[in-house]
Amino acid sequence: MRLTRAFLPTLKETPAEAQIVSHRLMLRAGLIRQTSAGIYTWLPAGLRVLNRVADIVREEQDRAGAQEVLMPTIQPAELWQRSGRYEDYGKEMLRIRDRHDREMLYGPTNEEMITDVFRGYATSYRDLPRNLYHIQWKFRDEVRPRFGVMRGREFLMKDAYSFDLTAEGARHSYRQMLYAYLRTFQRMGLRALPMRADTGPIGGNLSHEFIILAETGESTVFYDAALEEIDWAAKAFDFDSQADMEACFNLATSAYAATEEMQDEAEWAKVPAERQRTGRGIEVGHIFYFGTKYSQPMGLSVAGPNGEAVVPEMGSYGIGVSRLVAALIEANHDEAGIKWPDAVAPWKLAILNLKPGDAACDALCEKLHAAFPNQAIYDDRPERAGVKFNDADLMGFPWQAIIGPRGAAAGRVELKRRMTGERLECSFDEALAKLGA
Amino acid sequence: MRLTRAFLPTLKETPAEAQIVSHRLMLRAGLIRQTSAGIYTWLPAGLRVLNRVADIVREEQDRAGAQEVLMPTIQPAELWQRSGRYEDYGKEMLRIRDRHDREMLYGPTNEEMITDVFRGYATSYRDLPRNLYHIQWKFRDEVRPRFGVMRGREFLMKDAYSFDLTAEGARHSYRQMLYAYLRTFQRMGLRALPMRADTGPIGGNLSHEFIILAETGESTVFYDAALEEIDWAAKAFDFDSQADMEACFNLATSAYAATEEMQDEAEWAKVPAERQRTGRGIEVGHIFYFGTKYSQPMGLSVAGPNGEAVVPEMGSYGIGVSRLVAALIEANHDEAGIKWPDAVAPWKLAILNLKPGDAACDALCEKLHAAFPNQAIYDDRPERAGVKFNDADLMGFPWQAIIGPRGAAAGRVELKRRMTGERLECSFDEALAKLGA
Repeated sequence: MRLTRAFLPTLKETPAEAQIVSHRLMLRAGLIRQTSAGIYTWLPAGLRVLNRVADIVREEQDRAGAQEVLMPTIQPAELWQRSGRYEDYGKEMLRIRDRHDREMLYGPTNEEMITDVFRGYATSYRDLPRNLYHIQWKFRDEVRPRFGVMRGREFLMKDAYSFDLTAEGARHSYRQMLYAYLRTFQRMGLRALPMRADTGPIGGNLSHEFIILAETGESTVFYDAALEEIDWAAKAFDFDSQADMEACFNLATSAYAATEEMQDEAEWAKVPAERQRTGRGIEVGHIFYFGTKYSQPMGLSVAGPNGEAVVPEMGSYGIGVSRLVAALIEANHDEAGIKWPDAVAPWKLAILNLKPGDAACDALCEKLHAAFPNQAIYDDRPERAGVKFNDADLMGFPWQAIIGPRGAAAGRVELKRRMTGERLECSFDEALAKLGA
Repeated sequence: MRLTRAFLPTLKETPAEAQIVSHRLMLRAGLIRQTSAGIYTWLPAGLRVLNRVADIVREEQDRAGAQEVLMPTIQPAELWQRSGRYEDYGKEMLRIRDRHDREMLYGPTNEEMITDVFRGYATSYRDLPRNLYHIQWKFRDEVRPRFGVMRGREFLMKDAYSFDLTAEGARHSYRQMLYAYLRTFQRMGLRALPMRADTGPIGGNLSHEFIILAETGESTVFYDAALEEIDWAAKAFDFDSQADMEACFNLATSAYAATEEMQDEAEWAKVPAERQRTGRGIEVGHIFYFGTKYSQPMGLSVAGPNGEAVVPEMGSYGIGVSRLVAALIEANHDEAGIKWPDAVAPWKLAILNLKPGDAACDALCEKLHAAFPNQAIYDDRPERAGVKFNDADLMGFPWQAIIGPRGAAAGRVELKRRMTGERLECSFDEALAKLGA
């Protein structure tokens, strides 16, 4: 993609309304634009990151055996009246009346709807277990939306719902999601710690939230350094093995970890001082086991192996997909801008032509651009080198290929690794090899 | 995906509310489930088709030089008040008041919003031309939603918006989209005819709708057989060439084609009788050139090459993505069910194990299943062969691999091509080659 044709606008000024670094950088780097309070348009670079984050979430949900569906954004009020949550939810729920004056709402979550959908098909114990998820826009009418997509009103969430025949089955499903989450965040280059949590309006008696560490996080967290040393991607637990999932759960939850609100000083004191760690955290996921809290009132029941009626045990599992984009920036930035991890970068490479119009520069840039279809941004603008350096740093492409007239004449490319600042001068072929063309 | 673990429910009975074949088959084959009038949940098989359709649309938009963004579903009323359409739109617009009593709406289309977004960045003629699109859920509060996703209330649409410096530039953008649409529909195995159309509530003075031919279409169309003979995918017009786009436009629009409402008997009489064709059609796309109808009131203006203020010329271009899923079924089905074209099938292959538990059957099925990760459904259910044949025909997988004990013992597979009914008995390796493993 050539910058002279692209819609990748950057802003020089820091927008006044942005209070946290991710919000500032998302506006300045042209990832999002506010269209109403707490509601954003995703511009091309932002949408590409959002999609890459969603794809990683999707792959790990699929790996765990969950199946993707897509529920609509608009729900009928009756579903929520049946579960008793219609009144409870208060003003955060966006309530709507359609042209026939029927009460509708913009879904803030989908426990009721998925239970109703599943009820339409599940009749026997053979239809269980199942785990269904979707990645869909939700709406929560926050009083004071702020921090950009970190606490927006219209936001993208992955929510999964498990249906099991027994409580033990439901705990297995819960552990599968816990492991899937640890893998998901690690693949994005994030360190996410599972912490025991309150269940809030979802309900139930077992719940963990996933907190990623970032200096600019919203709350303080306390944890045992042992948690930092676990490489979840390397563990290769078998999702179908009860024993593996139990081992994974124990490994992830036996070391101490708590947010400020859940801090237990007596337990904390038991962690050896040299392993005590304190940091700032951002919640990016939350999982719940709540038994029959929704299946019971929604009338979901299947015939068990002996013909008896069984009300399935359920859990729900959320990941804030749009929030993760902001959280990734909170965890990966410097004064100059964003430093995208490779796994979620909108484009892997920016090609900076320092002298458009110079035949050698143009030729080398074009050749490199052609080698990375759909993976490179080619800055062919008639701008000063300083502007190009600043924009590339701001937008955070993992690699920059800097091509000036002197180097180009000798067929040399300068590569810069945004994450580390490392620089390397090399031949065109070496550059291709380094960039993994 | 094993059917014993999948969420791929089929219905034996034809639901009473479904009046057209695509609606009946989408419900029976477990593609969608209604959650309110005109609002649907997409089940796993339906979602996969929806995503494949959207991906083809996306690839062809990208090829044409359009860039993807994502606007939110909820819009502020002020945008529509500025263009004057807030009152015009009537009851089809879903109007909402948020907790602060601000007037909002669920977007039925995005001319106002994209113009406002673009205005935030475009300052100079160098920022033009641009074409921005998104694939997002829309809402139109139809009085009587019906025909399933063919005329639903919450529906998925691709809408693109072009910004040009001149009227001639805007016509070029219009022609680019016209060619992109012809390619898009042809890739899905559909024959789409562009027809001159009324501009309706979008406005403007140049408009074409794209009608696909299907026996069960909603309206009658009249066209010159010459249009049927054009292979758009083979044309390889250059999107960047004004001359190519003009040639493409002339080729696509010079032969007679009209819906009932636009039929011109005098012009129709000029088409040689042996080339006159009449058929039923379904509208799947609509493109508009409307000049400065939105850029003017929304205050979009850029500095021209000589510093003068220029109000960009705009067009908008829609494809009904969720509607296309139904249209594809209207065009591809028989008594037994859906016949998915390869390009949009949810899975390319169904493996029917006629005797689960038979060692040879199980082994051969597992081996075939392993050869098509994520592309095959393995019917391992303890069901009669007849049930499996019926479900595979109903769900419309392009290929069926039928494996019974006798064949399996000899290492033989029976392949069935759903589209043609053709059958072929072959070895395992021949089957792999035939299926393109």
